[in-house]
Amino acid sequence: MASFSPLLYADTHSADPLYFGKVEVPDPFIAFGHAGKKYAVVNALEFGRVKRQSDFDEVLPLEDWTRAAQAAFPKEKSGPAPIIALLGKRFGVKCFALPLDFPAGLAAKLAALKVKCVIVDGPLFPERECKSASEAKAIAQGNACSAAGIAAAERVLRASKVKGRSLLYQGKPLTSERLKVAIETACLEAGGVSQGTIAAGGDQACDPHDRGSGPLHAHELIIVDVFPRINATGYHGDMTRTFLRGRASDAQKALVAAVREAQLAALKKIRAGVNGQVVHQQCLDVFARLGYKTERKPSGAVGFFHGTGHGLGLAVHEPPRMSTVDAILKKGSVVTVEPGLYYPGLGGCRIEDVVQVTARQPKLLSSYGYDWELR
Amino acid sequence: MASFSPLLYADTHSADPLYFGKVEVPDPFIAFGHAGKKYAVVNALEFGRVKRQSDFDEVLPLEDWTRAAQAAFPKEKSGPAPIIALLGKRFGVKCFALPLDFPAGLAAKLAALKVKCVIVDGPLFPERECKSASEAKAIAQGNACSAAGIAAAERVLRASKVKGRSLLYQGKPLTSERLKVAIETACLEAGGVSQGTIAAGGDQACDPHDRGSGPLHAHELIIVDVFPRINATGYHGDMTRTFLRGRASDAQKALVAAVREAQLAALKKIRAGVNGQVVHQQCLDVFARLGYKTERKPSGAVGFFHGTGHGLGLAVHEPPRMSTVDAILKKGSVVTVEPGLYYPGLGGCRIEDVVQVTARQPKLLSSYGYDWELR
Repeated sequence: MASFSPLLYADTHSADPLYFGKVEVPDPFIAFGHAGKKYAVVNALEFGRVKRQSDFDEVLPLEDWTRAAQAAFPKEKSGPAPIIALLGKRFGVKCFALPLDFPAGLAAKLAALKVKCVIVDGPLFPERECKSASEAKAIAQGNACSAAGIAAAERVLRASKVKGRSLLYQGKPLTSERLKVAIETACLEAGGVSQGTIAAGGDQACDPHDRGSGPLHAHELIIVDVFPRINATGYHGDMTRTFLRGRASDAQKALVAAVREAQLAALKKIRAGVNGQVVHQQCLDVFARLGYKTERKPSGAVGFFHGTGHGLGLAVHEPPRMSTVDAILKKGSVVTVEPGLYYPGLGGCRIEDVVQVTARQPKLLSSYGYDWELR
Repeated sequence: MASFSPLLYADTHSADPLYFGKVEVPDPFIAFGHAGKKYAVVNALEFGRVKRQSDFDEVLPLEDWTRAAQAAFPKEKSGPAPIIALLGKRFGVKCFALPLDFPAGLAAKLAALKVKCVIVDGPLFPERECKSASEAKAIAQGNACSAAGIAAAERVLRASKVKGRSLLYQGKPLTSERLKVAIETACLEAGGVSQGTIAAGGDQACDPHDRGSGPLHAHELIIVDVFPRINATGYHGDMTRTFLRGRASDAQKALVAAVREAQLAALKKIRAGVNGQVVHQQCLDVFARLGYKTERKPSGAVGFFHGTGHGLGLAVHEPPRMSTVDAILKKGSVVTVEPGLYYPGLGGCRIEDVVQVTARQPKLLSSYGYDWELR
């Protein structure tokens, strides 16, 4: 791979630069690889920290390279393009490999400066899909953080009083917002930041990306989906449990049992070499057999209308998908397994765990109980 | 602007799509404007919510447009490119305007499909720089959230016991990590998520992007920088205070006084029409007059080596900058004012507030006291 010279210009909210350099940089910076070595160009604010903490073989001061680029390209506006052009010359890079999400404006400026680049049509670092033992451990830590959040939700729900259809927590109606603060606080204490946390009940939960707002009710299904990012590593957890505080109806019990049955059926199918489509079909088959229909109605979809799972790592959503698209599972991949059913009126249920794909049965990287009816 | 047809493909972690559609979408989606109307193409998971909550005039179902694009471009792989090509035809878009950070891979595919696009060399929505009254209010709410975090830090520091050089909180050595959990928990309860929080003491604080780790010490300057994102709006706060628990030396007192003097001097200069360079120069002048040198040493920079401020809004860092680069301040712009001084051995100090630029003196959008020596 001596001729592979990846070039990135992004901050480490993006997964690729974090994977490449193993250090957080909050603003976009130039990172590239050449002849087996890794380089970063950062400003004085980042220099010391990146030099000390990162995987980069060499850290170049942005201020020096900005000056040098201005001298080499006096007609150009300052910015990353002339610096990259100069780096390419100095390091003898024949062609930079760009990720699909490389900024188009910068790509155009590099083309104008005759810097040879090719956009890689697929992941720039396909090896990111197969997680090492230490990455799997970091994801398990992410899920421990998710589980801490889910446990906090369960504690609040158990501590809430049922009064007719209402739920009262510390004397006030329990809201999705309150439950999310409890979840996210627990995540913080477990070393992660949970953004976009879902704690949605009733019909709100039937819209799987509705995060929930307003009062939660007794005897209703409440979906709790927690996908924190661990501060120390950048890896994520992603787990979902569905609770009900009060008494479940037979229809609610059947719905939850169906989702868990689909999840277990999917887990049985997951192994290296299997197509994610086959795993997804397994959930579809279980739901069809049990009589749960998926339909698109003018008011929105009902039934099971999202994928069974997705890769998990430095990004919450990354390859491989387990859905209707073709994607062979590889040894070492880490995927969520999260079938769900959503019927306004009855409610929504999703149960999500995380596994690492092996040649045999997948290794569970998440752990939390499945008791859901909190009487 | 009938001929301006912006095209975005990003999730709403990016500011532009959130500004454009006023709704959170966690995965990249197609959004475009044409003839004064705004359109989004989203999948079944997002459809109902985006339709209900967003500013889009029309929300198009991704599944239908995927099928239609496959019929129209049977040789193309599925993905956003053929869908955008079809949208362009159906809606009669002559040329899409792309932001600088549009994904290069998608831009290349659009070019191959002969979809006419031009990359806008500057902000796609320059009006984002000038904040409306409701945006200023959202940013003030962000700063109230920052202040809640800073108040939590101050409470923990005051509650900590000084034992020689050590700080003990609830019987254990107080760490940066512990302080950050207290700060971020307070931010959650104030409706925001604080990521990348800085709570760094001593020499760590001399590296302005070191977030702090390990024990904090008595009689040392501790920088607390909190820039949360408000869940309900997506707007940020960004405030910094520097504390010291114990007794400050004369040199520490002089350092903090110098930073505050520079901040006040900068605030006096800020008004519409002034160049950000002039504001920045004001801080440099104050520090030079008071004898605080800025130098680049092999071990890292010392003195004042970052900008005086930056625009704040849906992104933590956005135009305009107040630094060595040319940038005229506009009426309505919201900027941080955050001079700092950093000398290993003595410590680091940064004080940061946020103002909105007006024709006269700027309007303060942040509020927290300046007492810093916690005896």
